[in-house]
Amino acid sequence: MAKINENFAKLPGSYLFAEIGRRTAAHQQANPDAKIIKLGIGDVTQGLVPAVIKAMHKAVDEQADPTTFKGYGPEQGYDFLRKAVLENDFKARGIDIDVNEIFISDGAKSDCGNIGDLFDIDNKIAVCDPVYPVYVDSNAMAGRAGEYDVDAEAWTNIHYMPTTADNDFFPAIPTEKLDIIYLCSPNNPTGTVLTKDQLKAWVDYANDNDAVIMFDAAYERFITEEGIPHSIYEIDGAKTCAIEFRSFSKTAGFTGMRCGYTVVPKALVRGGQNLNAMWNRRQTTKFNGASYIIQKGAEAIYTPEGKRQVDDAIDFYRNNARVIKEGLEAAGLEVYGAVNSPYIWCKTPDGMGSWDFFNKLLEEANVVTTPGSGFGPAGEGYIRLTGFGDAEATREAVQRIVALLAK
Amino acid sequence: MAKINENFAKLPGSYLFAEIGRRTAAHQQANPDAKIIKLGIGDVTQGLVPAVIKAMHKAVDEQADPTTFKGYGPEQGYDFLRKAVLENDFKARGIDIDVNEIFISDGAKSDCGNIGDLFDIDNKIAVCDPVYPVYVDSNAMAGRAGEYDVDAEAWTNIHYMPTTADNDFFPAIPTEKLDIIYLCSPNNPTGTVLTKDQLKAWVDYANDNDAVIMFDAAYERFITEEGIPHSIYEIDGAKTCAIEFRSFSKTAGFTGMRCGYTVVPKALVRGGQNLNAMWNRRQTTKFNGASYIIQKGAEAIYTPEGKRQVDDAIDFYRNNARVIKEGLEAAGLEVYGAVNSPYIWCKTPDGMGSWDFFNKLLEEANVVTTPGSGFGPAGEGYIRLTGFGDAEATREAVQRIVALLAK
Repeated sequence: MAKINENFAKLPGSYLFAEIGRRTAAHQQANPDAKIIKLGIGDVTQGLVPAVIKAMHKAVDEQADPTTFKGYGPEQGYDFLRKAVLENDFKARGIDIDVNEIFISDGAKSDCGNIGDLFDIDNKIAVCDPVYPVYVDSNAMAGRAGEYDVDAEAWTNIHYMPTTADNDFFPAIPTEKLDIIYLCSPNNPTGTVLTKDQLKAWVDYANDNDAVIMFDAAYERFITEEGIPHSIYEIDGAKTCAIEFRSFSKTAGFTGMRCGYTVVPKALVRGGQNLNAMWNRRQTTKFNGASYIIQKGAEAIYTPEGKRQVDDAIDFYRNNARVIKEGLEAAGLEVYGAVNSPYIWCKTPDGMGSWDFFNKLLEEANVVTTPGSGFGPAGEGYIRLTGFGDAEATREAVQRIVALLAK
Repeated sequence: MAKINENFAKLPGSYLFAEIGRRTAAHQQANPDAKIIKLGIGDVTQGLVPAVIKAMHKAVDEQADPTTFKGYGPEQGYDFLRKAVLENDFKARGIDIDVNEIFISDGAKSDCGNIGDLFDIDNKIAVCDPVYPVYVDSNAMAGRAGEYDVDAEAWTNIHYMPTTADNDFFPAIPTEKLDIIYLCSPNNPTGTVLTKDQLKAWVDYANDNDAVIMFDAAYERFITEEGIPHSIYEIDGAKTCAIEFRSFSKTAGFTGMRCGYTVVPKALVRGGQNLNAMWNRRQTTKFNGASYIIQKGAEAIYTPEGKRQVDDAIDFYRNNARVIKEGLEAAGLEVYGAVNSPYIWCKTPDGMGSWDFFNKLLEEANVVTTPGSGFGPAGEGYIRLTGFGDAEATREAVQRIVALLAK
């Protein structure tokens, strides 16, 4: 008798965006003339930049001709892309890693989920609260999370680290021993960043305890402030304790293209095993490389014209985020994020619940946001807005919120 | 302390193609003028068909324009492709499955590896011998294979089913209880197929024992004989016991594009859980959909012009396979496969070992093949050749082998 993985049955439903969709649709139906603006969406909306389009057309044509056709590629990614990543994302920042430490993939979500293959079931996992749900759910599926406690909205064997305005969004260095720690900076959903000193404290903790840090830097390209680390490998000691996830999704609008990469340093050894070699084995066995055409598109963002175009595209979203932040602040709200992130994390006024404020903005301003509580209990009392919308609609939405709160 | 997955350390090296490459390079170096022809490669070599190229150019252009841009797509695949698959690969053959039972992915290798997430560690796995290594290695990584016995070239907890000329390449229905059974038809590496009656015997066994069949139909498009099942769902009872893997890699030359799909029937229930819902949860949590551009390319193979073009492309490889089969048979060799497969499985003459015959063909005919023993102990005494090469080079290689054996 085939025995299934019983951990799947423990997973609670993930209804956040479905519930937002349901409430939005109900509001639209009750108010057919309402011009609803969505600022909740965590997906890019603008077209890919011309350099990427051009490179992909060329790659498509190569695939038509047997003399330039590419069949199976290296599971680790083509050297042309690994080298472009190495030079631009690391060496240009003074970070010395090896090209064989970079693994191109079909996206950071896959890698964040699949990295668990390298670890035993018996590991104590730590995540920030609020948090991107993939870290928790993928570990729960593997049996590392214990049982789900519906009342606490938490898994019994996961160590949750509240990151709120009360602790300046810095997850406290624990006093107990944790094994695998997920950190995300710039953070989804809070839009806040970890400083070098803060990251150094975590790197030291991880090395002292033989823990592993899973560092999610998917929003790295949105950093504007000097001195904020773009990679955990800017921190001394990180190579012996950290894996870093990167994505072209928000960097270059690749959410529908599917490409990202993961860095696994050769110096990262646990239980006598080299994690770089383990990830290489995992990827060569259970993955067959990212699409050639997509990798050629990703390579183009590192050309001089590609860089300029991507900078402009990022500026478009950054500007939206700034408009939201400044508008909400002018309306007297407490606002975080936006400066180094496409995300704005906004405290609800007068201690309102996340869903109550969500409803108020939907019903009285026709603006859709994301309730912070959907990302974890410590997200209660916040909402998330994003800079990924249309510029004009974003301005209009902010004006509506400002007018509503001035009533 | 982060504890690693100890099962990785048990995996033996996978040196088959590296060793073939080493011997080939050494021979070339010793014989700089030798015109070596490679018939060992399991990868397509011709360009993508015009309908696919055209569809991908159009999709690339859509990604340049915000009004047609596609960001995150459904993790399960776009409806346009799922519906094309449903109509053409199933309904057209009288198979009644639901569109929500089809999951588009970045390839059958990923799905064959990742499907293990749905099952407990405690399951008895069965594979054919010889076998595509992903089935075994992915289960070994998860801890289901026991220990690797170097002398036996086998895992202690895997049930190996010899499939050789001695049993007409039909893995015997076991007398003991097995939980998860991998079947591949048309088979890689043997090129042989399972008949309806043979598959029916396996489906009955699986239903009687609450086992699950993992049916790999990646080479389905190469079937030419009437009556050979293209899908396991042509067999009564398969929906309650089988998962089917399909790939566009060999069907449409997509090895470098990365697209395939997996069918998980809703009627497949084990331990009270619906495996369709479990796979949906797995994919939504740890995968973010296949690239939009690639899915549009895959959709194009189902258009009238796409079908004709793909048929022609397949005929090209089929013809190569036929040339190899007929040539080797004329040389007095015992040859299997080729009729419904791009693979030719050839018994070595005079009881030679796989590697000995490989060496002879390399050194005396300058032709590269794949030693059958590389796919498992029961592959000893065979070599694999493929129809994926250039037509002229294939003819030339066969002539050389014929001349060599006539000596």
